[in-house]
Amino acid sequence: MKVVKSSDVSKKKVEMEGAKGAEIRVLIGKDDGAANFAMRLFELAPGGHTPLHAHRHEHEVFIVEGKGTLIFEGAEYPLNAGDVVFLDGDKEHRFKNAGGSALKFLCLVPASGA
Amino acid sequence: MKVVKSSDVSKKKVEMEGAKGAEIRVLIGKDDGAANFAMRLFELAPGGHTPLHAHRHEHEVFIVEGKGTLIFEGAEYPLNAGDVVFLDGDKEHRFKNAGGSALKFLCLVPASGA
Repeated sequence: MKVVKSSDVSKKKVEMEGAKGAEIRVLIGKDDGAANFAMRLFELAPGGHTPLHAHRHEHEVFIVEGKGTLIFEGAEYPLNAGDVVFLDGDKEHRFKNAGGSALKFLCLVPASGA
Repeated sequence: MKVVKSSDVSKKKVEMEGAKGAEIRVLIGKDDGAANFAMRLFELAPGGHTPLHAHRHEHEVFIVEGKGTLIFEGAEYPLNAGDVVFLDGDKEHRFKNAGGSALKFLCLVPASGA
């Protein structure tokens, strides 16, 4: 069991090729005993983005703060705080910051994809 | 795949015994093809709470808005926007609104517990 402020969880730069201005905090993961799925908080600086990539596992996303764009299979979708995204696996996608302040979003994945 | 505003997802009263002033939106579930875990958004009115209960599955929680109290195994923990909670299974717990406006939090569970 744990209760923590998300801002107190250390963040790391996303080093994956194709990422820019992207940081990640693992809020809940295997180290907490979470065997089924992991909760991560991403923070994209203005102009930042995640890699354009595809993978087998799904994403469950909640936009916490800021404005963004989801690129999914070549189409663009605007994102705002309170929006929810379900991405099934094996589809090419990217999250971009589309505003002048940080874009923060939760992205949950099954333990096999964490 | 879906992109939706969480406020556009229909909410239902939580009818479970011991719940008061509690509503739930299933933001992402099996109907979306989410086979591993489900994302639900709870909204507790001032004075509202979830049942004091225990169950096998874990919870992964993110406080979106408002002020609350977590009761966990008899102890109380204050909750504020941006806080993260991991509750392992089989432990007695309750979420209460501790403020004067709605308490909104995401609560994710494995598909077996949804």
